[in-house]
Amino acid sequence: MTFPVSIALVHHPVLDRGGGTVTTAITNLDLHDMSRSARSYGLQDLFVVHPVAAQRMLAARIQEHWVTGSGRKRIPDRALALELIRIVPDLADAFAALGGDRAGVEVWTTAASSRGGEPTTYGVGRDRLARRDRPVLLVFGTGWGLAPQVVADADVRLEPIHARVETGYNHLSVRAACAITLDRLLG
Amino acid sequence: MTFPVSIALVHHPVLDRGGGTVTTAITNLDLHDMSRSARSYGLQDLFVVHPVAAQRMLAARIQEHWVTGSGRKRIPDRALALELIRIVPDLADAFAALGGDRAGVEVWTTAASSRGGEPTTYGVGRDRLARRDRPVLLVFGTGWGLAPQVVADADVRLEPIHARVETGYNHLSVRAACAITLDRLLG
Repeated sequence: MTFPVSIALVHHPVLDRGGGTVTTAITNLDLHDMSRSARSYGLQDLFVVHPVAAQRMLAARIQEHWVTGSGRKRIPDRALALELIRIVPDLADAFAALGGDRAGVEVWTTAASSRGGEPTTYGVGRDRLARRDRPVLLVFGTGWGLAPQVVADADVRLEPIHARVETGYNHLSVRAACAITLDRLLG
Repeated sequence: MTFPVSIALVHHPVLDRGGGTVTTAITNLDLHDMSRSARSYGLQDLFVVHPVAAQRMLAARIQEHWVTGSGRKRIPDRALALELIRIVPDLADAFAALGGDRAGVEVWTTAASSRGGEPTTYGVGRDRLARRDRPVLLVFGTGWGLAPQVVADADVRLEPIHARVETGYNHLSVRAACAITLDRLLG
């Protein structure tokens, strides 16, 4: 049996630049770019996690436009990507959909800095992913990254992405970080 | 001497989904995501290539907002990325800025499908980049990809990006493809 790999894009709880816990807004191109990357690397779902009903409705309207609406006629390939989107209020809903409960899912977090324990290298992560015995959920934070309690609850914390040489800068967009993570694990 | 590596984001000549040659519009998040990726991987410039003066002005206003305007105060890190942007009407202007003329630059193209000759694998590309003896310009197309004459003129045509397993889908955004390309070559 092959267990699926999915993504969660979290809008709450995430950090702002001051370190406070906030809720961020849905970004249209996150849905496009991350679902296109997910489909290209063979993932099963992109869970868009947002606690605010009006924001979930916005995400649903974007998805509908491309999956069943006029967007599908214009760019049929885009429907195959955005149909991976599952819009949920909380990470617990993603766990329920994938594995029944939290214990049924292996949760991997990603971050631009090392926080909350020893990180797993991408080399180790790639091997571990290939031998997975549960559905794996790769969790990405918007804003200034996932809140500490999400990172603390993870089974695997992936190391930050860096260039081979020290550039003194790693402020990738979540869209770019997601693409690189999928390529390092599944490329 | 170390020669720089730079990116060009081309809006003309590129293909539309019917295979015609068109000019695409500036996308705000391309400038953000690709300059952030460029800075994270130590690149020198992001050339934004657009033949239409009004579109170049739009790009310049976006850059100005983040590099010297109020955006800089709000997110100082963003200024370090967007200051890499050089807005030019034609690829020839990027060649002139980097190497004096076309012969002074090694031009590498990227594409989602193999066209215009034998592609270079990322493994070979990574070694070649490490031993470069001229400035290297990595060229990305918007829309449905670079027009054939741009690909035909390249010194190196990088292979398309694919997952390890065949997923039957590779429609990455240019923002995602750029991030993965930089990570494969310089990560």
